[in-house]
Amino acid sequence: MKIIGIDPGIAIVGFGIIVQRGSRLVPEQYGSIQTRAGLETATRLKQVYDATVELLHKYQPDVMAIEKLYFNRNVTTAFTVGQARGVMMLAAEQQGIPIYEYTPLQVKQATVGYGKAEKKQVQEMVRMLLSLKDIPRPDDVADALGVAITHAHSAKLNDVVHHKHTLHDRSKR
Amino acid sequence: MKIIGIDPGIAIVGFGIIVQRGSRLVPEQYGSIQTRAGLETATRLKQVYDATVELLHKYQPDVMAIEKLYFNRNVTTAFTVGQARGVMMLAAEQQGIPIYEYTPLQVKQATVGYGKAEKKQVQEMVRMLLSLKDIPRPDDVADALGVAITHAHSAKLNDVVHHKHTLHDRSKR
Repeated sequence: MKIIGIDPGIAIVGFGIIVQRGSRLVPEQYGSIQTRAGLETATRLKQVYDATVELLHKYQPDVMAIEKLYFNRNVTTAFTVGQARGVMMLAAEQQGIPIYEYTPLQVKQATVGYGKAEKKQVQEMVRMLLSLKDIPRPDDVADALGVAITHAHSAKLNDVVHHKHTLHDRSKR
Repeated sequence: MKIIGIDPGIAIVGFGIIVQRGSRLVPEQYGSIQTRAGLETATRLKQVYDATVELLHKYQPDVMAIEKLYFNRNVTTAFTVGQARGVMMLAAEQQGIPIYEYTPLQVKQATVGYGKAEKKQVQEMVRMLLSLKDIPRPDDVADALGVAITHAHSAKLNDVVHHKHTLHDRSKR
Protein backbone atom coordinates (compact mmCIF):
# COMPACT_ATOMS: atom_id res chain seq x y z
CA MET A 1 0.00 0.00 0.00
CA LYS A 2 1.29 3.46 -0.94
CA ILE A 3 0.15 6.38 1.20
CA ILE A 4 0.50 10.11 0.60
CA GLY A 5 0.36 12.08 3.83
CA ILE A 6 -0.58 15.75 3.68
CA ASP A 7 -0.16 18.64 6.11
CA PRO A 8 -2.38 21.22 4.39
CA GLY A 9 -1.80 24.97 4.24
CA ILE A 10 -1.72 27.83 1.78
CA ALA A 11 1.89 29.06 2.21
CA ILE A 12 3.40 25.59 2.77
CA VAL A 13 1.85 22.19 2.16
CA GLY A 14 3.91 19.32 3.50
CA PHE A 15 3.67 15.98 1.71
CA GLY A 16 5.19 12.58 2.35
CA ILE A 17 4.77 9.42 0.31
CA ILE A 18 5.49 6.13 2.06
CA VAL A 19 5.14 2.52 0.99
CA GLN A 20 4.07 -0.14 3.46
CA ARG A 21 5.92 -3.43 2.82
CA GLY A 22 4.75 -5.91 5.42
CA SER A 23 5.75 -4.32 8.71
CA ARG A 24 8.28 -1.98 7.05
CA LEU A 25 7.57 1.60 6.08
CA VAL A 26 9.70 2.92 3.22
CA PRO A 27 9.71 6.62 2.34
CA GLU A 28 9.40 7.13 -1.41
CA GLN A 29 9.40 10.89 -1.65
CA TYR A 30 8.70 13.85 0.61
CA GLY A 31 8.84 17.62 0.42
CA SER A 32 6.67 20.70 0.32
CA ILE A 33 4.54 22.76 -2.04
CA GLN A 34 5.11 26.43 -1.36
CA THR A 35 3.22 29.45 -2.66
CA ARG A 36 4.25 33.10 -2.53
CA ALA A 37 2.49 35.39 -0.04
CA GLY A 38 2.12 38.28 -2.50
CA LEU A 39 -0.12 36.32 -4.88
CA GLU A 40 -3.93 36.32 -4.99
CA THR A 41 -5.51 33.60 -2.84
CA ALA A 42 -7.15 32.02 -5.91
CA THR A 43 -3.81 31.87 -7.71
CA ARG A 44 -2.20 30.19 -4.70
CA LEU A 45 -5.08 27.70 -4.44
CA LYS A 46 -4.64 26.83 -8.09
CA GLN A 47 -0.91 26.30 -7.55
CA VAL A 48 -1.62 23.97 -4.61
CA TYR A 49 -4.23 22.11 -6.67
CA ASP A 50 -1.99 21.76 -9.73
CA ALA A 51 0.95 20.54 -7.65
CA THR A 52 -1.29 18.00 -5.89
CA VAL A 53 -2.69 16.69 -9.18
CA GLU A 54 0.90 16.29 -10.40
CA LEU A 55 2.01 14.45 -7.24
CA LEU A 56 -0.94 12.06 -7.36
CA HIS A 57 -0.38 11.43 -11.04
CA LYS A 58 3.35 10.85 -10.64
CA TYR A 59 3.34 8.65 -7.52
CA GLN A 60 -0.08 6.98 -7.84
CA PRO A 61 -0.75 6.55 -4.11
CA ASP A 62 -3.54 4.18 -3.05
CA VAL A 63 -4.68 6.48 -0.29
CA MET A 64 -4.46 10.11 0.85
CA ALA A 65 -4.09 10.72 4.61
CA ILE A 66 -4.65 14.36 5.52
CA GLU A 67 -4.30 16.23 8.77
CA LYS A 68 -7.52 17.45 10.33
CA LEU A 69 -6.72 20.51 12.36
CA TYR A 70 -9.10 22.43 14.43
CA PHE A 71 -7.29 22.80 17.67
CA ASN A 72 -5.43 25.93 18.72
CA ARG A 73 -6.37 27.64 15.52
CA ASN A 74 -8.35 30.79 14.99
CA VAL A 75 -11.29 31.03 12.63
CA THR A 76 -9.42 32.96 9.94
CA THR A 77 -6.66 30.33 9.87
CA ALA A 78 -9.27 27.56 9.71
CA PHE A 79 -10.79 29.27 6.69
CA THR A 80 -7.49 29.60 4.88
CA VAL A 81 -6.34 26.07 5.64
CA GLY A 82 -9.83 24.77 4.80
CA GLN A 83 -9.64 26.32 1.35
CA ALA A 84 -6.31 24.63 0.61
CA ARG A 85 -7.59 21.36 2.04
CA GLY A 86 -10.65 21.58 -0.20
CA VAL A 87 -8.67 21.76 -3.42
CA MET A 88 -6.35 18.92 -2.35
CA MET A 89 -9.28 16.68 -1.44
CA LEU A 90 -10.85 17.55 -4.79
CA ALA A 91 -7.68 16.47 -6.60
CA ALA A 92 -7.74 13.10 -4.79
CA GLU A 93 -11.47 12.59 -5.37
CA GLN A 94 -11.08 13.35 -9.08
CA GLN A 95 -8.48 10.58 -9.30
CA GLY A 96 -10.62 8.15 -7.28
CA ILE A 97 -8.17 8.08 -4.35
CA PRO A 98 -9.85 7.50 -0.95
CA ILE A 99 -9.15 10.13 1.70
CA TYR A 100 -8.62 9.57 5.42
CA GLU A 101 -8.46 12.34 7.99
CA TYR A 102 -6.43 12.24 11.19
CA THR A 103 -6.27 14.71 14.05
CA PRO A 104 -2.94 15.71 15.64
CA LEU A 105 -4.01 13.63 18.66
CA GLN A 106 -4.34 10.53 16.49
CA VAL A 107 -0.94 11.21 14.93
CA LYS A 108 0.67 11.45 18.37
CA GLN A 109 -0.98 8.22 19.49
CA ALA A 110 -0.02 6.35 16.33
CA THR A 111 3.62 7.48 16.25
CA VAL A 112 4.71 8.02 19.85
CA GLY A 113 1.89 5.98 21.42
CA TYR A 114 0.98 8.80 23.73
CA GLY A 115 -1.57 11.58 23.05
CA LYS A 116 0.31 14.25 24.96
CA ALA A 117 3.57 13.73 23.09
CA GLU A 118 5.42 16.85 22.01
CA LYS A 119 5.93 17.83 18.38
CA LYS A 120 9.65 17.08 18.66
CA GLN A 121 8.93 13.52 19.87
CA VAL A 122 6.61 12.89 16.92
CA GLN A 123 9.27 14.14 14.52
CA GLU A 124 11.92 11.94 16.10
CA MET A 125 9.63 8.89 15.80
CA VAL A 126 8.96 9.74 12.15
CA ARG A 127 12.71 9.83 11.57
CA MET A 128 13.24 6.48 13.32
CA LEU A 129 10.27 4.64 11.78
CA LEU A 130 11.37 5.66 8.28
CA SER A 131 15.10 5.08 8.99
CA LEU A 132 16.00 8.63 8.00
CA LYS A 133 19.29 10.23 8.97
CA ASP A 134 17.73 13.59 9.86
CA ILE A 135 14.30 14.93 10.68
CA PRO A 136 12.81 16.27 7.41
CA ARG A 137 12.44 20.07 7.25
CA PRO A 138 10.39 22.21 7.40
CA ASP A 139 8.10 20.87 10.15
CA ASP A 140 5.25 20.54 7.65
CA VAL A 141 7.12 17.75 5.86
CA ALA A 142 7.72 15.77 9.05
CA ASP A 143 4.06 16.33 9.97
CA ALA A 144 2.90 15.03 6.60
CA LEU A 145 5.03 11.89 7.01
CA GLY A 146 3.55 11.51 10.51
CA VAL A 147 0.04 11.51 9.06
CA ALA A 148 1.03 8.91 6.46
CA ILE A 149 2.51 6.69 9.20
CA THR A 150 -0.66 7.15 11.23
CA HIS A 151 -2.68 5.79 8.35
CA ALA A 152 -0.33 2.81 7.97
CA HIS A 153 -0.66 2.02 11.68
CA SER A 154 -4.42 2.56 11.68
CA ALA A 155 -5.11 0.58 8.53
CA LYS A 156 -6.35 -2.48 10.41
CA LEU A 157 -8.66 -0.40 12.54
CA ASN A 158 -9.91 1.24 9.40
CA ASP A 159 -10.77 -1.93 7.55
CA VAL A 160 -14.51 -1.40 7.79
CA VAL A 161 -14.30 2.20 6.65
CA HIS A 162 -11.88 1.26 3.91
CA HIS A 163 -14.22 -1.41 2.66
CA LYS A 164 -16.96 1.18 2.42
CA HIS A 165 -14.66 3.49 0.45
CA THR A 166 -13.67 0.68 -1.87
CA LEU A 167 -17.26 -0.19 -2.66
CA HIS A 168 -18.02 3.47 -3.10
CA ASP A 169 -15.15 3.94 -5.54
CA ARG A 170 -15.98 0.83 -7.46
CA SER A 171 -19.54 2.02 -7.98
CA LYS A 172 -18.21 5.19 -9.58
CA ARG A 173 -15.99 3.51 -12.13
CA MET B 1 -20.85 43.45 -16.68
CA LYS B 2 -22.14 40.07 -15.58
CA ILE B 3 -21.56 39.07 -11.95
CA ILE B 4 -22.02 35.71 -10.26
CA GLY B 5 -22.58 36.09 -6.51
CA ILE B 6 -21.82 33.11 -4.25
CA ASP B 7 -22.85 32.23 -0.72
CA PRO B 8 -20.52 29.27 -0.11
CA GLY B 9 -21.28 26.16 1.90
CA ILE B 10 -21.11 22.38 1.69
CA ALA B 11 -24.80 21.46 2.12
CA ILE B 12 -26.17 24.46 0.22
CA VAL B 13 -24.34 26.90 -2.01
CA GLY B 14 -26.42 29.88 -3.07
CA PHE B 15 -25.67 31.49 -6.41
CA GLY B 16 -27.07 34.51 -8.22
CA ILE B 17 -26.12 35.84 -11.63
CA ILE B 18 -26.94 39.46 -12.36
CA VAL B 19 -26.20 41.73 -15.28
CA GLN B 20 -25.43 45.40 -14.76
CA ARG B 21 -26.93 47.53 -17.57
CA GLY B 22 -26.07 51.15 -16.79
CA SER B 23 -27.73 51.77 -13.44
CA ARG B 24 -30.07 48.78 -13.79
CA LEU B 25 -29.42 45.37 -12.29
CA VAL B 26 -31.08 42.48 -14.09
CA PRO B 27 -31.14 38.98 -12.57
CA GLU B 28 -30.25 36.36 -15.15
CA GLN B 29 -30.40 33.20 -13.08
CA TYR B 30 -30.28 32.24 -9.43
CA GLY B 31 -30.63 29.11 -7.35
CA SER B 32 -28.67 26.72 -5.20
CA ILE B 33 -26.29 23.79 -5.44
CA GLN B 34 -27.19 21.22 -2.82
CA THR B 35 -25.28 18.14 -1.67
CA ARG B 36 -26.51 15.26 0.41
CA ALA B 37 -25.37 15.02 4.05
CA GLY B 38 -24.73 11.25 3.91
CA LEU B 39 -22.00 11.51 1.28
CA GLU B 40 -18.24 11.69 1.88
CA THR B 41 -16.91 15.24 2.20
CA ALA B 42 -14.66 14.76 -0.85
CA THR B 43 -17.63 13.61 -2.94
CA ARG B 44 -19.62 16.66 -1.88
CA LEU B 45 -16.70 18.97 -2.66
CA LYS B 46 -16.43 17.46 -6.12
CA GLN B 47 -20.17 17.98 -6.67
CA VAL B 48 -19.85 21.64 -5.64
CA TYR B 49 -16.81 22.05 -7.90
CA ASP B 50 -18.46 20.36 -10.90
CA ALA B 51 -21.64 22.40 -10.52
CA THR B 52 -19.60 25.62 -10.28
CA VAL B 53 -17.57 24.77 -13.38
CA GLU B 54 -20.85 24.16 -15.21
CA LEU B 55 -22.40 27.45 -14.04
CA LEU B 56 -19.32 29.46 -15.05
CA HIS B 57 -19.19 27.74 -18.39
CA LYS B 58 -22.90 28.23 -19.10
CA TYR B 59 -23.31 31.84 -17.96
CA GLN B 60 -19.79 33.18 -18.60
CA PRO B 61 -19.75 35.79 -15.83
CA ASP B 62 -17.06 38.50 -15.95
CA VAL B 63 -16.55 38.38 -12.21
CA MET B 64 -17.19 36.16 -9.18
CA ALA B 65 -18.25 37.89 -5.94
CA ILE B 66 -18.07 35.56 -2.96
CA GLU B 67 -19.10 35.98 0.64
CA LYS B 68 -16.28 36.12 3.16
CA LEU B 69 -17.60 34.84 6.46
CA TYR B 70 -15.72 34.67 9.63
CA PHE B 71 -18.11 36.19 12.07
CA ASN B 72 -20.32 34.23 14.45
CA ARG B 73 -18.94 31.00 13.15
CA ASN B 74 -17.08 28.30 14.96
CA VAL B 75 -13.79 26.87 13.76
CA THR B 76 -15.29 23.61 12.47
CA THR B 77 -17.82 25.52 10.36
CA ALA B 78 -15.07 27.79 9.06
CA PHE B 79 -13.13 24.70 7.97
CA THR B 80 -16.09 23.18 6.18
CA VAL B 81 -17.14 26.39 4.46
CA GLY B 82 -13.49 27.13 3.65
CA GLN B 83 -13.15 23.81 1.83
CA ALA B 84 -16.20 24.53 -0.34
CA ARG B 85 -15.00 28.07 -0.95
CA GLY B 86 -11.61 26.74 -2.03
CA VAL B 87 -13.01 24.53 -4.79
CA MET B 88 -15.30 27.31 -6.07
CA MET B 89 -12.45 29.81 -6.17
CA LEU B 90 -10.36 27.21 -7.99
CA ALA B 91 -13.10 26.80 -10.61
CA ALA B 92 -13.16 30.58 -11.22
CA GLU B 93 -9.37 30.86 -11.31
CA GLN B 94 -9.15 28.00 -13.82
CA GLN B 95 -11.49 29.93 -16.12
CA GLY B 96 -9.59 33.22 -15.62
CA ILE B 97 -12.51 34.88 -13.80
CA PRO B 98 -11.43 37.48 -11.21
CA ILE B 99 -12.73 36.93 -7.68
CA TYR B 100 -13.84 39.57 -5.19
CA GLU B 101 -14.63 38.87 -1.56
CA TYR B 102 -17.19 40.75 0.54
CA THR B 103 -17.99 40.49 4.21
CA PRO B 104 -21.60 40.43 5.46
CA LEU B 105 -20.96 43.98 6.77
CA GLN B 106 -20.07 45.17 3.28
CA VAL B 107 -23.18 43.48 1.86
CA LYS B 108 -25.38 45.26 4.41
CA GLN B 109 -23.77 48.61 3.66
CA ALA B 110 -24.04 48.16 -0.11
CA THR B 111 -27.67 46.99 -0.13
CA VAL B 112 -29.41 48.64 2.83
CA GLY B 113 -26.80 51.38 3.33
CA TYR B 114 -26.47 50.54 6.99
CA GLY B 115 -24.00 48.09 8.55
CA LYS B 116 -26.33 46.98 11.30
CA ALA B 117 -29.19 46.09 8.96
CA GLU B 118 -31.00 42.84 9.66
CA LYS B 119 -30.91 39.85 7.33
CA LYS B 120 -34.57 40.40 6.45
CA GLN B 121 -33.89 44.02 5.39
CA VAL B 122 -31.04 42.90 3.13
CA GLN B 123 -33.30 40.30 1.52
CA GLU B 124 -36.06 42.85 0.96
CA MET B 125 -33.59 45.25 -0.69
CA VAL B 126 -32.33 42.41 -2.90
CA ARG B 127 -35.93 41.78 -3.97
CA MET B 128 -36.56 45.48 -4.71
CA LEU B 129 -33.25 46.18 -6.48
CA LEU B 130 -33.78 43.22 -8.80
CA SER B 131 -37.53 43.89 -9.24
CA LEU B 132 -38.46 40.41 -8.04
CA LYS B 133 -41.95 39.51 -6.92
CA ASP B 134 -40.77 37.47 -3.94
CA ILE B 135 -37.62 37.09 -1.90
CA PRO B 136 -35.69 34.13 -3.37
CA ARG B 137 -35.52 31.03 -1.18
CA PRO B 138 -33.65 29.53 0.59
CA ASP B 139 -31.81 32.39 2.33
CA ASP B 140 -28.54 31.33 0.68
CA VAL B 141 -29.90 32.37 -2.72
CA ALA B 142 -30.94 35.83 -1.52
CA ASP B 143 -27.54 36.15 0.19
CA ALA B 144 -25.72 35.23 -3.03
CA LEU B 145 -27.70 37.86 -4.97
CA GLY B 146 -26.84 40.34 -2.19
CA VAL B 147 -23.13 39.68 -2.70
CA ALA B 148 -23.50 40.12 -6.46
CA ILE B 149 -25.30 43.45 -5.92
CA THR B 150 -22.56 44.49 -3.50
CA HIS B 151 -20.00 43.97 -6.20
CA ALA B 152 -22.06 45.99 -8.71
CA HIS B 153 -22.34 48.84 -6.21
CA SER B 154 -18.68 48.63 -5.24
CA ALA B 155 -17.33 48.36 -8.78
CA LYS B 156 -16.22 51.99 -8.94
CA LEU B 157 -14.42 51.73 -5.63
CA ASN B 158 -12.79 48.59 -6.91
CA ASP B 159 -11.42 50.08 -10.09
CA VAL B 160 -7.82 49.98 -8.93
CA VAL B 161 -8.06 46.41 -7.70
CA HIS B 162 -9.89 45.37 -10.83
CA HIS B 163 -7.21 46.91 -12.97
CA LYS B 164 -4.61 44.86 -11.12
CA HIS B 165 -6.64 41.70 -11.69
CA THR B 166 -7.05 42.48 -15.37
CA LEU B 167 -3.33 42.94 -15.87
CA HIS B 168 -2.71 39.81 -13.90
CA ASP B 169 -5.13 37.79 -16.02
CA ARG B 170 -3.80 39.21 -19.23
CA SER B 171 -0.27 38.18 -18.33
CA LYS B 172 -1.45 34.60 -17.93
CA ARG B 173 -3.11 34.31 -21.32
